[in-house]
Amino acid sequence: MNEFELIARLTHSLPANKSVVVGPGDDCAVLDFGLPDRLLLFKTDAVVEGIHFQSDAPPEKIGHKALGRCLSDIAAMAGTPTAALVTLALPQQFNPDAVERIYAGMTALARKHDVAIVGGETTTNPGRVLLSVAVLGHVLRGKATLRSSAEAGDAIWVTGNLGGSLLSGKHLEFEPRLAEARWLTQHFSIHAMIDVSDGLAGDLRHILKASRVGAELLAASIPISRAAKEASRNRAREDEGRLPAQGGGGKSPLLAALSDGEDFELLFTGAARDAVPLLDAWKKEFPKTPLACIGKITAGEGIHLRDRDGVRPLTVHGYEHFT
Amino acid sequence: MNEFELIARLTHSLPANKSVVVGPGDDCAVLDFGLPDRLLLFKTDAVVEGIHFQSDAPPEKIGHKALGRCLSDIAAMAGTPTAALVTLALPQQFNPDAVERIYAGMTALARKHDVAIVGGETTTNPGRVLLSVAVLGHVLRGKATLRSSAEAGDAIWVTGNLGGSLLSGKHLEFEPRLAEARWLTQHFSIHAMIDVSDGLAGDLRHILKASRVGAELLAASIPISRAAKEASRNRAREDEGRLPAQGGGGKSPLLAALSDGEDFELLFTGAARDAVPLLDAWKKEFPKTPLACIGKITAGEGIHLRDRDGVRPLTVHGYEHFT
Repeated sequence: MNEFELIARLTHSLPANKSVVVGPGDDCAVLDFGLPDRLLLFKTDAVVEGIHFQSDAPPEKIGHKALGRCLSDIAAMAGTPTAALVTLALPQQFNPDAVERIYAGMTALARKHDVAIVGGETTTNPGRVLLSVAVLGHVLRGKATLRSSAEAGDAIWVTGNLGGSLLSGKHLEFEPRLAEARWLTQHFSIHAMIDVSDGLAGDLRHILKASRVGAELLAASIPISRAAKEASRNRAREDEGRLPAQGGGGKSPLLAALSDGEDFELLFTGAARDAVPLLDAWKKEFPKTPLACIGKITAGEGIHLRDRDGVRPLTVHGYEHFT
Repeated sequence: MNEFELIARLTHSLPANKSVVVGPGDDCAVLDFGLPDRLLLFKTDAVVEGIHFQSDAPPEKIGHKALGRCLSDIAAMAGTPTAALVTLALPQQFNPDAVERIYAGMTALARKHDVAIVGGETTTNPGRVLLSVAVLGHVLRGKATLRSSAEAGDAIWVTGNLGGSLLSGKHLEFEPRLAEARWLTQHFSIHAMIDVSDGLAGDLRHILKASRVGAELLAASIPISRAAKEASRNRAREDEGRLPAQGGGGKSPLLAALSDGEDFELLFTGAARDAVPLLDAWKKEFPKTPLACIGKITAGEGIHLRDRDGVRPLTVHGYEHFT
């Protein structure tokens, strides 16, 4: 049983109540507490030593990542984060200075986005550090970008360059795209949005499944990170001259961009008629952040990839836990 | 460095913002999102295999405890829980049926209190199960019962019978006192409240420290659980006849009631003039749940215990992690 099968089994009959607008299965839960103009966003996420970060990662970056993952999920709903709680599970022999540095990384990111850290707890977890963060935020009514709102004919966009985030260290340093997501929904008709955590193909599949549509991607339009390209080149050089590998695992750069996880970029769909004005306005507003239109939503099923040889189904999956 | 010293070090300069009414250091964070009549309550809590439950505990009870601890913290603020998120960290070789039973226990408690479970995540934690729950709730403005509101002259009350909860299994089965806490604040002038998780003395100290007051407890009034009494009797019998011990660790029943943790009862202070009418009304409203007036808040420092031999300072501490 993999992670997604387990989640499906656990979430098929969870209790709901009248506050629930969106329950399990999107980037955040959406709750109606009776505010006239806003809905609440509620999200939790955990990072585990040896799984989401290595033991020798700089502690500040571990803290940055733990909070950043939750903020990226708030961004994927076009929301604004307000407050966070931190659960820190530590081995009995912990280093107080390293723990303070974890908090320093979290605190710096929180201040940048005006997020209050309002408590949490420390507990014991023999063997490894585990950090679980819960975030409460809000979004204007009618502006939450769900996974289930993609429509056939929509254009598909993605921010940033994808692939190789574990090699480049981006997975520990990414900036959650909060301002970008809010700007998009303020100025354009954005239908569905998700953040790229499981990998472009895997996260697009989450949108397709929730929206009951398919997608056709243009291979040449998918933005590939320098890290993914270098990893591929190093791999080729290693095969030729037997130099030591520097990572990459033999993936082509395109495959890395499609399947590597932890880029925490925005993947979204919207009215195709907006494609040109959206790209133009984006370049003026966020000149340092790439934005690419990578394909379209179709009435079919699954993902198809179009390259110079034609169109073929894409079978690659994103990263799953428990496989 | 113990748990409380670490928390003090981590929380001395956390970021706040204009939503924060109460930040770290109380049973829940209290947030103002602009609702006219209510404030939000935000809480997270974790249970770890081998620390908060043994590996052979019935999975339903593990789930009950994980959610129940958070609900008990909402109760300690006289609030109402609305929605919960669950982070389940599992060894790679997990038993899906046990995981479903954990969820069944959580779900049953959630339904009882109309709490929606709106998502969460599963992740890997080699070696042991860890369950982290985040809860969002609300409380009427002016009704949140903080740790910092005790006043010299207040009477001190506690619900239930205390001590031996690990022996009796109460720590896995307790009912969060949500209705009781709301009823108390609706009908009486309750000043400070906390739930008994670290032990009566330890949790009372949290109130005293936050309120900058002291307390005098009446030894004869402290409600001692049957489990704490039996553990003490078994210990005595073991000393006499060398029968095998059945737990208890040699504590007197009073010491167990003062220092054992995980009873999840309400400990609160309020106007002494209410003592008799409050006890009378309580007996009618909650006839099955004991309520005891156990002492008074003083202008001094620390806890003093009054018994037939006089008054002496109480040095026993509640349970701390990381000692």
